[in-house]
Amino acid sequence: MSGSHDHHTSNAHDPNHASNLVIHKLTQLRHWLGTQGLNGYFVPTTDEHLNEYVPPARQRRQWLCGFTGSAGDLLVTTDQAWLFVDARYYEQADMELAGTGIQVSKLGLDGQPTIEKILQNLGDQAAQRGEICRIGLDPFTITLGQYKQWLDKLNGYNLEIASLPHNPIDALRAAAELIPAFGDREIFALAETMAGESVATKLQRLRQAMTEQKLAVLVLTKLDQIAWLYNLRGRDVACNPVFISYSIVTADTAYLFTNLERFPESARATIADLVQILPYGAYLSSLQRLVNEAGSPLSVGITPNQTTYGTYLALKATSAKIIETSNPVETFKAQKNPTEIAQMQQANLKASRAKTLALREIDLALTAGKKLSEKDVADIIESHYKAESGFLELSFPTIAATGANSSIVHYGTPSATAWLKDGDLLLIDSGCQYFGGTTDDTRTLAVGIPSADQIAKYTAVLQAHINVAMQRFPKGTTGAQLDGITRSAMWQKGLDFGHGVGHGVGAFLNVHEGPNGISKRSHTPLEPGMVNSVEPGYYQPQWGGIRIENLYVVLTDPTEDGTTVPSTPWYHWESLIYIPFDPKLIDVEQLTPPQKQWLKAYYQAILIKVGSTLDQEPKTWLENLCAPILGASEA
Amino acid sequence: MSGSHDHHTSNAHDPNHASNLVIHKLTQLRHWLGTQGLNGYFVPTTDEHLNEYVPPARQRRQWLCGFTGSAGDLLVTTDQAWLFVDARYYEQADMELAGTGIQVSKLGLDGQPTIEKILQNLGDQAAQRGEICRIGLDPFTITLGQYKQWLDKLNGYNLEIASLPHNPIDALRAAAELIPAFGDREIFALAETMAGESVATKLQRLRQAMTEQKLAVLVLTKLDQIAWLYNLRGRDVACNPVFISYSIVTADTAYLFTNLERFPESARATIADLVQILPYGAYLSSLQRLVNEAGSPLSVGITPNQTTYGTYLALKATSAKIIETSNPVETFKAQKNPTEIAQMQQANLKASRAKTLALREIDLALTAGKKLSEKDVADIIESHYKAESGFLELSFPTIAATGANSSIVHYGTPSATAWLKDGDLLLIDSGCQYFGGTTDDTRTLAVGIPSADQIAKYTAVLQAHINVAMQRFPKGTTGAQLDGITRSAMWQKGLDFGHGVGHGVGAFLNVHEGPNGISKRSHTPLEPGMVNSVEPGYYQPQWGGIRIENLYVVLTDPTEDGTTVPSTPWYHWESLIYIPFDPKLIDVEQLTPPQKQWLKAYYQAILIKVGSTLDQEPKTWLENLCAPILGASEA
Repeated sequence: MSGSHDHHTSNAHDPNHASNLVIHKLTQLRHWLGTQGLNGYFVPTTDEHLNEYVPPARQRRQWLCGFTGSAGDLLVTTDQAWLFVDARYYEQADMELAGTGIQVSKLGLDGQPTIEKILQNLGDQAAQRGEICRIGLDPFTITLGQYKQWLDKLNGYNLEIASLPHNPIDALRAAAELIPAFGDREIFALAETMAGESVATKLQRLRQAMTEQKLAVLVLTKLDQIAWLYNLRGRDVACNPVFISYSIVTADTAYLFTNLERFPESARATIADLVQILPYGAYLSSLQRLVNEAGSPLSVGITPNQTTYGTYLALKATSAKIIETSNPVETFKAQKNPTEIAQMQQANLKASRAKTLALREIDLALTAGKKLSEKDVADIIESHYKAESGFLELSFPTIAATGANSSIVHYGTPSATAWLKDGDLLLIDSGCQYFGGTTDDTRTLAVGIPSADQIAKYTAVLQAHINVAMQRFPKGTTGAQLDGITRSAMWQKGLDFGHGVGHGVGAFLNVHEGPNGISKRSHTPLEPGMVNSVEPGYYQPQWGGIRIENLYVVLTDPTEDGTTVPSTPWYHWESLIYIPFDPKLIDVEQLTPPQKQWLKAYYQAILIKVGSTLDQEPKTWLENLCAPILGASEA
Repeated sequence: MSGSHDHHTSNAHDPNHASNLVIHKLTQLRHWLGTQGLNGYFVPTTDEHLNEYVPPARQRRQWLCGFTGSAGDLLVTTDQAWLFVDARYYEQADMELAGTGIQVSKLGLDGQPTIEKILQNLGDQAAQRGEICRIGLDPFTITLGQYKQWLDKLNGYNLEIASLPHNPIDALRAAAELIPAFGDREIFALAETMAGESVATKLQRLRQAMTEQKLAVLVLTKLDQIAWLYNLRGRDVACNPVFISYSIVTADTAYLFTNLERFPESARATIADLVQILPYGAYLSSLQRLVNEAGSPLSVGITPNQTTYGTYLALKATSAKIIETSNPVETFKAQKNPTEIAQMQQANLKASRAKTLALREIDLALTAGKKLSEKDVADIIESHYKAESGFLELSFPTIAATGANSSIVHYGTPSATAWLKDGDLLLIDSGCQYFGGTTDDTRTLAVGIPSADQIAKYTAVLQAHINVAMQRFPKGTTGAQLDGITRSAMWQKGLDFGHGVGHGVGAFLNVHEGPNGISKRSHTPLEPGMVNSVEPGYYQPQWGGIRIENLYVVLTDPTEDGTTVPSTPWYHWESLIYIPFDPKLIDVEQLTPPQKQWLKAYYQAILIKVGSTLDQEPKTWLENLCAPILGASEA
């Protein structure tokens, strides 16, 4: 999938009641603003660990304003409030915020202000009154990088960003309801046979990198980095198999801060020799003590976009010499070792079989004249996911969007009343966590007989997908270069899509991870072992949407024969996903000979890798489906 | 051309004498190090205005060590010295530094240290002695951006960078020889009919941008920005029609600091109402006074990679609030107005005619069995440049490289003893300044009958060129995306080249300018009016090299018909250069139908734009040359 998603459910049965409740909460917050001499308060979506999926106990923005989307920051001033959402949440935000008085700023549309613009305006207004506008925030809910970016943009404006020690939303919420449990799900260890590398050698490599960067201390905030480093996994956050924690690594000690009660002795034993395990709440004081007790100022490494401004402030209050640097763990984690690649292959093969069987079930149902809703489709795919061994959970909420809904890039909850009908495009973007591997793929189907226009657009997107999938590239190539290669042929037809071509994917970790990606903003060179999605699309409001997504791993080109100039390692992509594209939507005659060869080889691989594991009836169904492609001329 | 170049000439007739002289100078510098308590001194190539072509009076590194290359920084310590050069200067540096004891670090080769690595080692060695290593530099010869990058990389090392007020090389040189004249060539004004915009509206636009960025003051260091802003040109620097100066712009005043003696009253009059013209030497004191005399701290904008660390330090000593920001002048200058585009078209048409006639002269000479050297080739092209009206100078030293020399990306001075011989590839990369426009193009020819391998490689490079030249792209597209599109088909064949696809080009200004470019490091979106080179290549040591370069301007796509999705401005390239590619080297059968169409249309345009202006004989020669391409089947 190309971004983040989540379910949206109506906030309450009575919209008036819901909006009155939000108004009441905002009034309480504004009362508090008055007591603090503040003109406003910033309530972002994310939490202390910069999670994409925020645990319920930290869903502060959602609790305060009732908006349930996965992304959308809130700014509340003494007399106004704004929610800033991107295209996937324009309608949902309007709906959920109706009657609250909160203005929805639809980012990306003409004339819709960014939060920086609103803050600048507030500063200008304050200047006219001869005052300073003071905006409060919880520094643990914003990265150091974003904070600095704000400072740059707000430079010269009569505005002060005030970092406050206690989060007022937590206080208001605690007074109103029981805050959900937090970080209480069992932590489990990943055997070295699954992780492919011991914690000891991971720490050794990390310390080597720290020595090279002259770092005495490295602070880890992001949960997937911590889970990777210690070969541990958890269930504290939806979709991501991680656990709430912090970590600090020094030249001779590693510290892990987490809720100890749910950390079984057996799992602790796997790292006990290497790591000091301490309560979650001891993080900040331990960090400060560690630094202050050193004889001389310690170099402490933090990564501006992966560390909260709160941690930075805590370090500023010590004798630490703060070094802003890239994070070696992020780089190590992205380059999967052979065991991780094998695990990812297995998991994605299960997901491929599950989706192939789901496509068959949908096809048979429709052929039999059965009525299917989007929700039925999501239920079908999820039931097949669960039928495979080692299923833990979805890696993101399933997108099943039919007809006009398919043009919404991050369509929310599949509807039980949106029925598949002839002429529709049906877009299914889904994935899951199998024990050992994370999956993600998208297929777009024609319901009934597709139109010539649907076929033309689908074929253009498929060509974009194949062009990058078959691209060989030298060491040093960045995602931005591959992004252009993906779009080139679509651009010649005047077609484009508004999201990146793909994102990094974790090995039994987050479905979105850095530092690799394929987009014009991806400047990290691709290296062997990196897993990335490739998911070009096409979206036309009302008409519908197309997205074709596989996961691929970067491998070193085995055909290196010394004749390449310059002499450098060459890489290629290998697919982890083997699910047929809908042949009804492919105009094979439009494909170039190399594209045809790639497509035939891909269909042959589907039959071998997936087909050979199926019972006779689904196997025959798959063979029949693949036959037109496999039989096409290659000329 | 794909980077910077220059002539290299032997330093002295007696190499022993030359190296003894360098050793003597280094001894003097080391004596001075001792008096200052320094362990080393950094002597970069560039100057106070970050010029690519450094005026003789500021060629400090060349004077000190005898290396004449256009790029190569020198570090001298009490007992060692290093020159850091890139691939274009490996051999030349070895040759020119022989006997001096200076080590040549060949950047890009395995095991060759960067300057940062040497500095780290010096820090480590100092740490072992329990000392701090102090390296001196002239802060006006390094950008703020590079200084900060060093600080990042040297963090934690026992190393101090000491910014010293006086440049010791200038003092040593002044004691040894008369320092050449500096900034003494006449400044001339460019009429609004040539510039396309008045100085008044340029200043108005700039001040509007400054207001939006809340900047009270903007400091300009780079000569091309100043020349553009004031519609003035000069001859103080080789190849670039600029003049030595600084400028400061405030909300109500603009200051230009330059040598007044060579600034004619008629040229001054064109800006006298808008600009205070002051002596060059008054820059720093005026800047500091301006800031300090303001009632409250002024926001002063500087651009880290376009401002020297020296200017930054001078501002730090004032009450200024220093804002690091992008430079609006750089952006304005890159987006040529219709008049500038017309001037660039005219200039590049002259250059196209000149090179076409040069290609004919070379062809006729070779056919007649005449012996030609690289220098003969350069002389031929330069004589044709000069035969066109409005010729000022070359925009960079001509590259004429034959045989194995053609594989050296930035081959130096064309040799009078390197003869063209059958089987060679001849690469001619040249350009000039015509009054009103700057030109740059490269053609590669086969001398005699080319081999199948030469044809295959040339055709691959030509396809890369055409692929990006015919690429349509939406607003927001970056150079990194287009870089990937250029290389895609070459990569599939295991071919690549070690430089970017292209650079921005000024309008009657520098042949290399920012912010646009086509490379994996170019993240600036391309906008209408930007001029960029497209110059893919292929280089194989010993075998030879190929480069095919045109200049293109970005234009808004006139075929926008509302059917594109998403609805956005679409752009395309229009060539400024019309010179035939060598048909002997093109395997037309390898081209795709769109590539063939592009090539035919290009050859038709050559006949119309260049052919129609030629006398009958050269016209017939050109028509015969173009005939095989124009007659090729399009299937």
